[in-house]
Amino acid sequence: MDSNDLAALDANDPLAGFRDAFVLPEGVVYLAGNSLGALPKATSARLDQVVRQEWGASIVRGWTEHGWIDAPARVGGKIARLIGAEPDEVIVADSTSVDLFKLIVAALSAAPQRRTLLGVVGEFPTDIYVAQGALEALGGGRRLQLVERGALEDAIGNDTALLLLSHAHYKTAELWDMAAITARAHAAGALALWDLSHSTGAAEVDLNAAQADLAVGCGYKYLSGGPGAPAYLFVARRHQDRLVSPLSGWMGHERPFDFADGYAPADGVRRFLCGTPPILSLVALEAGVDLMLQADPAALWRKARRLGDVFLELAATHCPALEPACPGPGRLRGGHVAFRHVRAAEIHEALVERGVIGDVRPPDLLRFGLSPLSVSYGDVRRAVQALEEVMGLVARM
Amino acid sequence: MDSNDLAALDANDPLAGFRDAFVLPEGVVYLAGNSLGALPKATSARLDQVVRQEWGASIVRGWTEHGWIDAPARVGGKIARLIGAEPDEVIVADSTSVDLFKLIVAALSAAPQRRTLLGVVGEFPTDIYVAQGALEALGGGRRLQLVERGALEDAIGNDTALLLLSHAHYKTAELWDMAAITARAHAAGALALWDLSHSTGAAEVDLNAAQADLAVGCGYKYLSGGPGAPAYLFVARRHQDRLVSPLSGWMGHERPFDFADGYAPADGVRRFLCGTPPILSLVALEAGVDLMLQADPAALWRKARRLGDVFLELAATHCPALEPACPGPGRLRGGHVAFRHVRAAEIHEALVERGVIGDVRPPDLLRFGLSPLSVSYGDVRRAVQALEEVMGLVARM
Repeated sequence: MDSNDLAALDANDPLAGFRDAFVLPEGVVYLAGNSLGALPKATSARLDQVVRQEWGASIVRGWTEHGWIDAPARVGGKIARLIGAEPDEVIVADSTSVDLFKLIVAALSAAPQRRTLLGVVGEFPTDIYVAQGALEALGGGRRLQLVERGALEDAIGNDTALLLLSHAHYKTAELWDMAAITARAHAAGALALWDLSHSTGAAEVDLNAAQADLAVGCGYKYLSGGPGAPAYLFVARRHQDRLVSPLSGWMGHERPFDFADGYAPADGVRRFLCGTPPILSLVALEAGVDLMLQADPAALWRKARRLGDVFLELAATHCPALEPACPGPGRLRGGHVAFRHVRAAEIHEALVERGVIGDVRPPDLLRFGLSPLSVSYGDVRRAVQALEEVMGLVARM
Repeated sequence: MDSNDLAALDANDPLAGFRDAFVLPEGVVYLAGNSLGALPKATSARLDQVVRQEWGASIVRGWTEHGWIDAPARVGGKIARLIGAEPDEVIVADSTSVDLFKLIVAALSAAPQRRTLLGVVGEFPTDIYVAQGALEALGGGRRLQLVERGALEDAIGNDTALLLLSHAHYKTAELWDMAAITARAHAAGALALWDLSHSTGAAEVDLNAAQADLAVGCGYKYLSGGPGAPAYLFVARRHQDRLVSPLSGWMGHERPFDFADGYAPADGVRRFLCGTPPILSLVALEAGVDLMLQADPAALWRKARRLGDVFLELAATHCPALEPACPGPGRLRGGHVAFRHVRAAEIHEALVERGVIGDVRPPDLLRFGLSPLSVSYGDVRRAVQALEEVMGLVARM
């Protein structure tokens, strides 16, 4: 694959125009959208409008006059279109960690005769931390069972209440077959809860086609919602009326403005709201989601895979000393590619000096996030050129 | 008290200059700062800087280059100065409801031999909702005991693990004697958790002088942090190492960037962080807090009381049909004054038509929030003039 091939890929890319919708520093190849997505140009103006025109002019009446009160459901409904859900199955609320806590406790409380929360060793640590905290709070002899990835399906059993899995692995980008695992969980009478943080916006997610039960995801990676953007959660319609959030704050109340004394959960997914939503951060998230919704989803997922395939093919040719740590060309994966090298941290820093921003996860993993909206095939070529140069320096160290 | 007296109060107000630091719509008297504080003029520019210069230019490196990662502790440390706490006792995180959940569960879990969470009938409903959810999750025979306000002290007993109280009542603005109640709780071996949402920024709060244990408060009222601004929580140093948050997300981990498999809570109040903080909303909160920190705290609390006293005195003279529903002139109260009237909703709407924005709480309560930074004595006079006019119309209905 030569530079003509890559130029042709960019020339024929139906999404090529989106790159200009982002603020990208001059000379930088930004491949850390899997940590924090780049700034959409439209976000500044939208935030300025919310601050000056809405907060400044309407103050407290902004909650109704400018639809702030509906923002969690409105933005959730938009994200639903990117993950194969119905609009009334998704809501924006709190952080991924807080949303995980809500859904873990809700699901475990609804199946008191089952004691096991089943997960996989080495998946995203905060998901495990939250599970530990939830089990500690619930007590009742419940336990967290962590197994090796290959042993998951056989570990699902009569005592399994819930599976907790990252759809795409934060290190290796491996994707679970969501439909197959969900079917296996359901056959055993269990539910599955998916963390979509490393797939939504960069890989196909089709929750309802997979008969998924529950999911959460973050807003600040491929959705370009800004640093610490609020998260979203999904509850399949069939579970909405039987699951109750332990974080029973007023925004999840049936009639929040009655200021009634007892908690009564709202109908539908809104019961998983808790406190007052952070409107400024939420509006920035909406601007990122609106941008992505302008693209054809099929084109997004196709380009994301192709960017990864091209990265892996070029790296195999030009950087043979780098060991790929993600599914290879032609295979499904999350939104990034990954490599292992004992000097990963130094390689990362040398790349940064050359304007190529990826990231590193201890002890030895290099990741490059490939947002299909903001990354071009030319970016991938420049990144691999820099990587080749750096690997040459590393070999001489 | 005539208009000359009020003009003299404004002329001698050391805080008078702060009113111009807010965006206030032309012709509006804004007395709903107890629901959502007005927009500080500095906030737009600060947010624009964070979006364009920090997120736009540094993207993921903004977490370190621009101190986002330290923002929860930094802004918490600033709020500490307004509530009589040490900087390392306060952190900004999540919403008030989520923070309440953390502290309720942490405190009850640390006193397993005591079963009772004690509160007061008719305090802020979401606090009660959150308590109900926390107790449901914890189980173990724990119960929520709600008593009448006057019966609180006698209800504190050997089974009381925790008191949950609003420092200022959201309807009546009554203030608890924090030091006296805390002493009573400690004498019985219990802790007390204070919701400061209706006092911080408009009334004196001195947590450490009161030997307070735990507190939470919202950022969007008198702190002018914007719609849904993040909340803050306080944990007295002596409790920080023995209480553990049930919401054990990665930002509260001892070493979040090690991505270790097991949860180990950070030292100090940082262990009460959970997920990634919403930086845009957090920075807007910081701009509001920074503005308030430019004022002399003693002058703030003195002016807030005086504004309320003047409002009540003028209303007694000009609107005798309105029944005061808050502590009278000269007495301590939270940041608003309140009145009862069977036609409260209509009175509120008629005031809004006259440019006076207060708020109404069902079924019969009118509230007027008196932010000492953004409200003048002249505003109070104009509000009572409008109220007098409206009461005249109501009398003829």
